[in-house]
Amino acid sequence: MTEQSPTAPGPSPGDELVFLALGGIGEIGMNCYLYGLGPADARQWLMVDLGITFPEGENDPGIDVILPDLRFIEAERTSLAGIVLTHAHEDHFGAVAELWWRLRAPIYATPFAAALLAAKLAEFGGRERPEVRVVALDSRFTVGRFDIELISLAHSIPESNALLLRTPLGSVLHTGDWKLDATPLIGAPADVARLVRLGDDGVRAMVCDSTNALREGRSPSERDVARTLSGLIRTAKGRVAVTIFASNVARIRAVADAARSAGRQLVVAGRAMHRIIAAAMDTGYLPSDFKYRDQEHYQYLERDETVLLCTGSQGEPRAAMARIAEDQHPHISLGKGDLVIFSSRTIPGNERAVGRIHNQLVDLGCELLTDADALVHVTGHPRREELKEMYGWVRPRVAIPMHGEARHLAEHAKLARAAGVNEVVAVRNGDVVRLGPGAAEVIDQAPVGRLYRDGRLLLAAEDGPLRQRRALAFAGIVIVSLTLSLRGELLADPLIMLDGVPVLDGRGESMLEHLLDVVDDTLKSIPAARRKDGETVREAVRRAVRARVEDLWGKRPITKVLLTQLNARG
Amino acid sequence: MTEQSPTAPGPSPGDELVFLALGGIGEIGMNCYLYGLGPADARQWLMVDLGITFPEGENDPGIDVILPDLRFIEAERTSLAGIVLTHAHEDHFGAVAELWWRLRAPIYATPFAAALLAAKLAEFGGRERPEVRVVALDSRFTVGRFDIELISLAHSIPESNALLLRTPLGSVLHTGDWKLDATPLIGAPADVARLVRLGDDGVRAMVCDSTNALREGRSPSERDVARTLSGLIRTAKGRVAVTIFASNVARIRAVADAARSAGRQLVVAGRAMHRIIAAAMDTGYLPSDFKYRDQEHYQYLERDETVLLCTGSQGEPRAAMARIAEDQHPHISLGKGDLVIFSSRTIPGNERAVGRIHNQLVDLGCELLTDADALVHVTGHPRREELKEMYGWVRPRVAIPMHGEARHLAEHAKLARAAGVNEVVAVRNGDVVRLGPGAAEVIDQAPVGRLYRDGRLLLAAEDGPLRQRRALAFAGIVIVSLTLSLRGELLADPLIMLDGVPVLDGRGESMLEHLLDVVDDTLKSIPAARRKDGETVREAVRRAVRARVEDLWGKRPITKVLLTQLNARG
Repeated sequence: MTEQSPTAPGPSPGDELVFLALGGIGEIGMNCYLYGLGPADARQWLMVDLGITFPEGENDPGIDVILPDLRFIEAERTSLAGIVLTHAHEDHFGAVAELWWRLRAPIYATPFAAALLAAKLAEFGGRERPEVRVVALDSRFTVGRFDIELISLAHSIPESNALLLRTPLGSVLHTGDWKLDATPLIGAPADVARLVRLGDDGVRAMVCDSTNALREGRSPSERDVARTLSGLIRTAKGRVAVTIFASNVARIRAVADAARSAGRQLVVAGRAMHRIIAAAMDTGYLPSDFKYRDQEHYQYLERDETVLLCTGSQGEPRAAMARIAEDQHPHISLGKGDLVIFSSRTIPGNERAVGRIHNQLVDLGCELLTDADALVHVTGHPRREELKEMYGWVRPRVAIPMHGEARHLAEHAKLARAAGVNEVVAVRNGDVVRLGPGAAEVIDQAPVGRLYRDGRLLLAAEDGPLRQRRALAFAGIVIVSLTLSLRGELLADPLIMLDGVPVLDGRGESMLEHLLDVVDDTLKSIPAARRKDGETVREAVRRAVRARVEDLWGKRPITKVLLTQLNARG
Repeated sequence: MTEQSPTAPGPSPGDELVFLALGGIGEIGMNCYLYGLGPADARQWLMVDLGITFPEGENDPGIDVILPDLRFIEAERTSLAGIVLTHAHEDHFGAVAELWWRLRAPIYATPFAAALLAAKLAEFGGRERPEVRVVALDSRFTVGRFDIELISLAHSIPESNALLLRTPLGSVLHTGDWKLDATPLIGAPADVARLVRLGDDGVRAMVCDSTNALREGRSPSERDVARTLSGLIRTAKGRVAVTIFASNVARIRAVADAARSAGRQLVVAGRAMHRIIAAAMDTGYLPSDFKYRDQEHYQYLERDETVLLCTGSQGEPRAAMARIAEDQHPHISLGKGDLVIFSSRTIPGNERAVGRIHNQLVDLGCELLTDADALVHVTGHPRREELKEMYGWVRPRVAIPMHGEARHLAEHAKLARAAGVNEVVAVRNGDVVRLGPGAAEVIDQAPVGRLYRDGRLLLAAEDGPLRQRRALAFAGIVIVSLTLSLRGELLADPLIMLDGVPVLDGRGESMLEHLLDVVDDTLKSIPAARRKDGETVREAVRRAVRARVEDLWGKRPITKVLLTQLNARG
């Protein structure tokens, strides 16, 4: 048993193999991992995945998307040999279009991910185009000093790849997102013999998916879901609408097959779904003559001759399902006796948005069916029995749980120890772990963080606008404009504006009138000698106004005083 | 079989019995129901419950609590005979302290609810005190023309009462919140013979809890939870912390009993928990010598001699559990080897807040146990088999599903029909249903809505501040202050302030500088003749500034121009 690849050159003196996460460990999504090879002052880096995560409503007001802060690798970007994408889910590749130009390293992706990336880049437009090198499934290629082998595993999107990184200091299996599925509908089941062989050859470290480490047993197969959907669609009387994660091509195929065998036509609604279908046809995951109707045709079809496949399973307010539920969709309506299947899981944080849509559909008279009612969805991540099996095959010396929040990582760590792994390293984003030589341990910290996409700009978490908007959301703003002479005399009536603040107090009196009085009183209360000092006046007025609002309302808004001092009449 | 109570006087000509919800049907919480008796122009009203609901994060920025808009009954308040509280959960009695003075009708409550209401009113302070009439469990009393009988049912708080309203037009069973529990720990199991007798006597309408109408089977008993907790606490090695809904006195007793039999001392943290314990001791639901330690003692106890009972099961940021998880509690800390039990269910919308605390506890090294891991919580609402049983006993002619969102109401309606009820009326807040004479039907609409507690003020939903704060949260605000002569000449440098808006554009240039240029250019572009017109100037500057920000940022902030026009230098 050797940990050294026969093809790789031996380690140089001072060489180390290190791992760190810029995102994805201790949080949901935003997967971005780095492997480094070389001495501490001259490492070569390989990036695995570059994903996004989604904001948390009230904590991130007005934010669409959160991306990893790459400052660490930006500073080392001349040593970044390449970026390998394990698969095309947003939490693994969603930040490439926006952040690639800060790195400018070649991207390696399998055909389906490359097709989706191309579509995304075309939409994103402008700027320098990344160099995307398309690599075959199960292929082996080198990126700098890294000898990489792709290993196909099942997931909820075509082409999810584990990476075997062979280095002079040993091999690492980076699992990406995976599950075990004997009948995945798309792709082959896991090649167990090959995984066992890897284990025989010696895997120094396995960096592995923790998403379902809290869930006992095994996940059902995608085929089980296909059977359920087929039965539901065959026996339905009215229209059937199915909403899914758009990227689940196996699910698209299952719905299409079920529609065809029930003598119904498939209608597709939602831009993301169209993009996925096009990429899947291009790469052979859907037949090149895959038949479906665009949403404009929906209204011409009879109720029992259509299956609608649409986006919006997470309650996204602009997606097809939300507009249908509000009865606001330009082409599609559902009503009494129609069946709506949520062939999806609700991501934590989206419960209320999804619940609202469920209620609206019921109010329209639809029958609603979710994964709480029938096997209409399966996870794409390994449950505990699947994890145990993988540890049994690969037998890594070191285990690093990734892709999960604290609870999942902690349970995964316990499971790995119970599965016989001696070195289980609990890490968080930014921990630099030396995987070799010697025992695995955290040896350094790298700067990590989040970038918030705010409009067209990317803001760092510590930037002010988000903090300010949280304060504005809580208690609004009061603005006072004062025009004074240089001697401190009022030259015009003060102007006051309230935004997000109640206009009447508890007795129905005008808040504005109260505040005009306060400004008046405050100005009068400042001795003439000090009234010349703009800063004194501004601060006195600001405090007095804010205190009065608090007194009347119980909350303290942002309070701004804009003071203009003029020579005139002075 | 007669539908008319032998004790009530007969109906007068034109008499009708009507029902309507001011809150609670088609939403979570905010239960507030009205029964009306008499001709359309002269009804006497009875209110059942007056509860609150909680806001939805980003949609309700800065809002603590939502209360029902009572304008309908305020206008009729001289005809409001009384307010009966079914039980002391916030979603049933939480709005009394704030809204009672708008109604000033006597309140009827059983001892435990009355004790909690008194504690609440004392806290709320000020104003006129409501008249609270304490009524005994299972008692019968009249309120105006309504002959009311209380029927004890199990729930997750002591003293949950169904109301039997006997009227000249028939009887109504208003179930309140209930479940069937043969071993509820507090109170007796449901008196089935009595319910069957009611059915025999004839119940015209049942207005019934829909919360768990989607859940098959029956709910386990509170005693099952007590057993699980007892086992967990007996075998624990380190500290044990249990967080529960504070009002669940049976659960408090179960934890206290488990602590005692494990030789541990009970420590209580959280104001709400203290308030409940005091009320439960006063009313006999906890022994008058109920022993527990205050949180200050926690630090002097050994790790294996304490059980901590605390608030915060919903991730409330200021509650004890949140502060413990952040390691910021003044008296209590938890760490490696300690067991934390969430003896609760996560209310939809709180998943992320609760998840964050779970992760923090795991990061502290705690073992975490939730209702996904063991039977440490049961619902207080009837699942489908329990509902069927109730329909079988009571056999109402009319069923009105209440207390639920659209999905629950729709499933409940189906279940009631399947249970043999002929008239199932699907209603929403504001629908006035005639229960008799004749077939039940919606005959009118009453104005309903929500009041938002914003600071110390109550705002109607359509008021501006909330809408404004949503806009501020999304894109912040830009304020421009201009001082012009009456001829339109600039008398001072324009002042610009940004709040919640990025300070740099995508190229790192100052947003403020850009906007000062825009103001300058805009003023110059306005012909001298039109510059005298303040409104023209203001609007031109506002539009130009807003457009420039959108151009640089991709978002359009609230934009305000404060214009002062002076005679000076004119």
